[in-house]
Amino acid sequence: MTKNTWTQIKDQLTTDIRSGRLSAGDQLPTEPQLVARFGVGRHSVRKALEALAREGKLSIEQGRGTFVNATPRLTYQIGKRTRLRRNLIPQGVTVSSQLLDAGRIHAPENVSQSLHLDPGALVVHSQRITSANDVPVAFGSSYYCAARFPDFVERRDTLGSTTEAIRSYGIADYFRKSTSMHSRTASAEEARTLRQHPDVPVIVVHAVDASPDGTPLSCSRVIWSAARVTFTMEHSDD
Amino acid sequence: MTKNTWTQIKDQLTTDIRSGRLSAGDQLPTEPQLVARFGVGRHSVRKALEALAREGKLSIEQGRGTFVNATPRLTYQIGKRTRLRRNLIPQGVTVSSQLLDAGRIHAPENVSQSLHLDPGALVVHSQRITSANDVPVAFGSSYYCAARFPDFVERRDTLGSTTEAIRSYGIADYFRKSTSMHSRTASAEEARTLRQHPDVPVIVVHAVDASPDGTPLSCSRVIWSAARVTFTMEHSDD
Repeated sequence: MTKNTWTQIKDQLTTDIRSGRLSAGDQLPTEPQLVARFGVGRHSVRKALEALAREGKLSIEQGRGTFVNATPRLTYQIGKRTRLRRNLIPQGVTVSSQLLDAGRIHAPENVSQSLHLDPGALVVHSQRITSANDVPVAFGSSYYCAARFPDFVERRDTLGSTTEAIRSYGIADYFRKSTSMHSRTASAEEARTLRQHPDVPVIVVHAVDASPDGTPLSCSRVIWSAARVTFTMEHSDD
Repeated sequence: MTKNTWTQIKDQLTTDIRSGRLSAGDQLPTEPQLVARFGVGRHSVRKALEALAREGKLSIEQGRGTFVNATPRLTYQIGKRTRLRRNLIPQGVTVSSQLLDAGRIHAPENVSQSLHLDPGALVVHSQRITSANDVPVAFGSSYYCAARFPDFVERRDTLGSTTEAIRSYGIADYFRKSTSMHSRTASAEEARTLRQHPDVPVIVVHAVDASPDGTPLSCSRVIWSAARVTFTMEHSDD
């Protein structure tokens, strides 16, 4: 057995998933079956499966078996006209969003700075989780000035979209002003919330949205599952 | 001892690093000294140090001790005018770049597509590693059409910058056309190349640069240490 046996198994299974021979939701053969199929040791099989789980391609569910993940990596375009639903729905996934928490708080320092508010000004805070085909892809918090948007969360929920909620305040349009992102390991709680393997990293995205004249409307901090998204940017004048 | 003891130690050490009480290159007190200082168990101290190592703030060097990392997280602005040196040098770091490999190859499929070349066309390939203050931050490959830029790597090295090398072919300017990025766990080899903790993720960035008329000039695939960079984007017309 060569040193690279497990990577060969991993490559073969990756090909099986890409080609559709194994498709979303399929259960993989058992470990002894894979040992027999590839003619290798149990250790190599396990190492290959764990590497694929870390990449988000498989879910190893204790006591149930190993399954091909239902979510391919989504593409999320970031630019002046970043819109969550418009981004994800054309990729053939069903997008759902669930409100986890909402309330009024005194703005943390980075929030008041992003929104050009006085330190400690009241902001409307909401925390949501977004899923594609019922698999969580991201969760996070957004902040709106409470003086200007006192009932933002209620309007967002009644109208069903951020664009419509902003319009209801007489603001015809909004655009993405700035985005920053970094990646790091996930905390145990983040991994649980995103239902991902503990070793899959997260991408932390801070964004500020503004009205056409450049006035900041809202800011957000969203934790994405690194296995479930690729961010893309087109730098032609948008 | 509360359940959160180790996070409190982590927060305190983070504050020490941010405030400069502990600075780049400093050796941390030993584990027994930290146990005494914080009045907690050895397990909590170890957990805090490991979490900081995963975030890239500390390096735990087997048999030597634990050190504060020399590289703060750099900010890398991505936009139409993305330039490596212009991005990093104003942050007070010394940037160096080392050529690891160069040659002519038949373009892989994604490269010929990005460069609008026939499948398998010859391209000039070079692989470089970029360091800030002698700590690696990213390494990767770039590809130029061999028919158009036959001696690109030599000119880049003689002239010392990509901008100057492109100018030497009579192309006054270039800009970033598109960028895509995702994050994943690092392979053992990537972690070694970037001299980072095995648990620190990497960010994989694919980019296409073009001349002002939109003709693709080059494409690249760069692996960034996730602990050493935050990407930022401004979405005003650039």
